Amino acid sequence: MMTPIPTKSDVRLNRVTIVGTGLLGGSIGLAMKRAGLAQRIIGAGSRPETLEKALRAGCVDETRSDLLDACKASDLIVLAAPVGKIPDLIRQLAAHVAPGGVVTDVGSTKGTIVAAADATALRDRFVGSHPMAGAETTGPQSARADLFKDRPVILTPSPHTSPEARRLVESFWKAMGMRVFTMDPQEHDCLVAVISHVPHAMAVLLVELARKNGALPVASTGFADTTRLAMGEPELWADIFLDNRRAVGEALVQWSRMCDEFQRVLEGNDRESLLKILREAQADRISWRDRPKGQA
Amino acid sequence: MMTPIPTKSDVRLNRVTIVGTGLLGGSIGLAMKRAGLAQRIIGAGSRPETLEKALRAGCVDETRSDLLDACKASDLIVLAAPVGKIPDLIRQLAAHVAPGGVVTDVGSTKGTIVAAADATALRDRFVGSHPMAGAETTGPQSARADLFKDRPVILTPSPHTSPEARRLVESFWKAMGMRVFTMDPQEHDCLVAVISHVPHAMAVLLVELARKNGALPVASTGFADTTRLAMGEPELWADIFLDNRRAVGEALVQWSRMCDEFQRVLEGNDRESLLKILREAQADRISWRDRPKGQA
Repeated sequence: MMTPIPTKSDVRLNRVTIVGTGLLGGSIGLAMKRAGLAQRIIGAGSRPETLEKALRAGCVDETRSDLLDACKASDLIVLAAPVGKIPDLIRQLAAHVAPGGVVTDVGSTKGTIVAAADATALRDRFVGSHPMAGAETTGPQSARADLFKDRPVILTPSPHTSPEARRLVESFWKAMGMRVFTMDPQEHDCLVAVISHVPHAMAVLLVELARKNGALPVASTGFADTTRLAMGEPELWADIFLDNRRAVGEALVQWSRMCDEFQRVLEGNDRESLLKILREAQADRISWRDRPKGQA
Repeated sequence: MMTPIPTKSDVRLNRVTIVGTGLLGGSIGLAMKRAGLAQRIIGAGSRPETLEKALRAGCVDETRSDLLDACKASDLIVLAAPVGKIPDLIRQLAAHVAPGGVVTDVGSTKGTIVAAADATALRDRFVGSHPMAGAETTGPQSARADLFKDRPVILTPSPHTSPEARRLVESFWKAMGMRVFTMDPQEHDCLVAVISHVPHAMAVLLVELARKNGALPVASTGFADTTRLAMGEPELWADIFLDNRRAVGEALVQWSRMCDEFQRVLEGNDRESLLKILREAQADRISWRDRPKGQA
């Protein structure tokens, strides 16, 4: 299961390349600068206007449009691209990372990505990461240095990952204030199906249920909270759902059983069972809200 | 369907009684004071300590523990009690409301409550209301004068309701900044099943799905938003779900079909259909967020 890892923030890097300087990549740049983590931060990506915005927002020190050129001399390369593009980036970079250079990513799924890395010469120097932070906004202009503070990050090293690479990536996220968990890629994918992908799907379907029933005009704050995730970028989320469709499918089978059971309780006018469900969820949700924040 | 009602805030009342001075009742008192709606506000309720807190928080001008005594000389009586208690309150009050006195409520379901009023001598002077506002907190100490501002309120007059009573209650909520909608009690119950009760159930079940899978330690901001409603008071919500179980049951049948369809799209690795679902929900949710705020 999950292993919280105690580390000190003693990491200091010469060059770091961030591939993809959107909200996440841009925020990583700002958080690194605030923590004084690197001498020089290079932004790489395929869209010149996004790179330009990241530079203007102070997320990176310089930008490069050529991937290999941007990465070849870096101590750490952070792939902050959409899930669907990360395996290809790993394959392109594999033969061009500097000796001792470490690669990590921010993808919301880990099975496919770690398998892609394991099939290349990068296998000992790739450490899959999933920082659990986000926002409704996109682009480097929305980047925030504190986006990662007190949030969980899940690392998914493979049996090939070297202890040095793992330690470097752990220290890197810790230095940004994240709570580090470590687990294998498959366990990661099952857990995020449950706490992220199914909730996202439910937010999407609740919006559609409301629209189909003409109920949006009277919706209020509770609806707003419950459906906020539905504003996520469709292309990004299609990649995530499809890449993790096996684990999401298994979670949806459990989900469907729970919905059926809830409906049976209502139909049976069974106040005791209903109260039990509502009380357990309330207690669990409040304990979760009140959990100690510094704790992994 | 829904009828936005244009009114001016020209209401001025001598005495208003609020029965139940918790978060909603207390906030109504504060909002009335801010808007200068009444000469005198009386708080009534069965718990002396809640009444005392409401008085100390400035939500009411005086308190009474005897219901009939608190209500007998009032122009307007607002029943801010839990859904399960409102029909009984109506029956107790029916013969004791002053001539010309109007009664409204804040219950989250309307069918049972309006039917209860229609079976009493209050039928022409009762106007069912559902102000769509709430908070995670409870009690008069959490009351806020701006809780209702820019939020929807649904009125559900019956064929027996007098035009004068309806106008008074419309003006009352408008004076607190609410956007007034009017519909029949059954339509209300179907709409709130969709935008409030099903979302509440989903929040509850998502917490339990996460707990059962040991995923709570890595849950983050998206999970927090989606499951906030699960912190609602179990007793209040059990009453709401059971009172509205027919409409919630019908919404859950639709819901279950939508979940099955989503799962088929994933299983089929059908990117186009998935993108269509995600794009429609994103567009609808953003339009809803950006709707003109003053508009009913």
